[in-house]
Amino acid sequence: MHSLQFTAESSSNGMIERDFTVGEVPGVLWSPASGIERAPLVLMGHGGGNHKKHPAMAGRARLLVTGRGFHVAVIDVPGHGDRPRTAHDEREIAELYRARAAGEPEGPIVVRYNAHLAQLAVPEWRATLDALQELPEIGTDGPVGYFGINMGTAIGIPFVASEPRITAAVFGQHWPDVLAEDAKQITIPIEFDLQWDDEHIPREAGLALFDAFASTEKSLHVNAGKHKELPRFEADSAVRFFARHFGRAVTSLI
Amino acid sequence: MHSLQFTAESSSNGMIERDFTVGEVPGVLWSPASGIERAPLVLMGHGGGNHKKHPAMAGRARLLVTGRGFHVAVIDVPGHGDRPRTAHDEREIAELYRARAAGEPEGPIVVRYNAHLAQLAVPEWRATLDALQELPEIGTDGPVGYFGINMGTAIGIPFVASEPRITAAVFGQHWPDVLAEDAKQITIPIEFDLQWDDEHIPREAGLALFDAFASTEKSLHVNAGKHKELPRFEADSAVRFFARHFGRAVTSLI
Repeated sequence: MHSLQFTAESSSNGMIERDFTVGEVPGVLWSPASGIERAPLVLMGHGGGNHKKHPAMAGRARLLVTGRGFHVAVIDVPGHGDRPRTAHDEREIAELYRARAAGEPEGPIVVRYNAHLAQLAVPEWRATLDALQELPEIGTDGPVGYFGINMGTAIGIPFVASEPRITAAVFGQHWPDVLAEDAKQITIPIEFDLQWDDEHIPREAGLALFDAFASTEKSLHVNAGKHKELPRFEADSAVRFFARHFGRAVTSLI
Repeated sequence: MHSLQFTAESSSNGMIERDFTVGEVPGVLWSPASGIERAPLVLMGHGGGNHKKHPAMAGRARLLVTGRGFHVAVIDVPGHGDRPRTAHDEREIAELYRARAAGEPEGPIVVRYNAHLAQLAVPEWRATLDALQELPEIGTDGPVGYFGINMGTAIGIPFVASEPRITAAVFGQHWPDVLAEDAKQITIPIEFDLQWDDEHIPREAGLALFDAFASTEKSLHVNAGKHKELPRFEADSAVRFFARHFGRAVTSLI
């Protein structure tokens, strides 16, 4: 088992940013600057082609950290961010660009490639959570959430299905083909986003994935608009979802 | 044209409640107790079998009034609250109870009866809005919203489709049969609630009604649960929806 090594630290506007590694996996941990106190942790999965510090990640982290006092961690998925691409990554990415240029459906390639990445990333997430819970400001007894859309959902659903420490999750915008079976194993509260006019994911596919979750508490948020037009206010909604389930349980370490 | 007559006034916990009539139609206007200032107005439609001061109405009004500084008005629908039932009302209600006791679908009766009530109620809402806008604290230049689920949607959709003064609306939980044609005329931002396990309204019917709106900005909130299990947090969401579209535009009269 690898422990967590901090490699850099900075802070701005009330948020401390600490880069870390767990073995070969690079990550970032954002925490409130107002003293490191024990608080709930939200793990976030970045989208395909992006990385752990993409503005969408940093923006959502700011809402959770400065707005609610939570800790937030993101790791780079294999082939993304600071991690090298394999020949397999290069082939799949080239295939995606080829399909896009030819006007062919991207779904089959994204579904296949993301499933491959999930097989690699799920054990990395588990090791990262093990290491994060050794930090005194996180610990093993606080609530842990997961928040990831697009590729963050393709990795998050198998991760959450096999990880009892996660007690609330926000997912969205993926196909049911590979994921529905794992979704049927998930019983924790979830919020799920889909776009009504998604040019890649048919409505029926998005609704089928939402339907698959076994959770008695599940909410679907559909918005008019295309794949990339998920409204900003859904990030606010996700933050409220975690706050509703985790409370504002910020307690002092001392 | 009837003007608005106030008939009673009380206040509690930061909210003034003023009963009124516009012609034969009884209503209630809730306003912030902290001085009557010009502020956005939200019209709310009550559910079938309920009335203008049902706890669901008063509770939502409190969120809008004390939380956001808005004015909120509700009127009794014909045959409801302080208004007499006609022989037609009695026949339809008896038919609904008979179907319910026999385990037959309620939908066809609710759809038919609510469409009848909407024909009566839409001109009453228009006259009520005319009269409310004569009050200095409301006026004709501020934003006006509409918020009604169930029967509040059956009346609200034809009202909003024919009423350009309404600029944002929250609807939900009804069938598309009668309403889809009017929904196609609606282009303002909407939020729409439906229950994923509704024992009366099939999923496909609820989704079809959401789909019918011509609005470029529309959000669907689906929650696991039966018809009457719409979560309380959807009222909070509706309030945020109006706040997002109307701002906190509370300006002094003076």
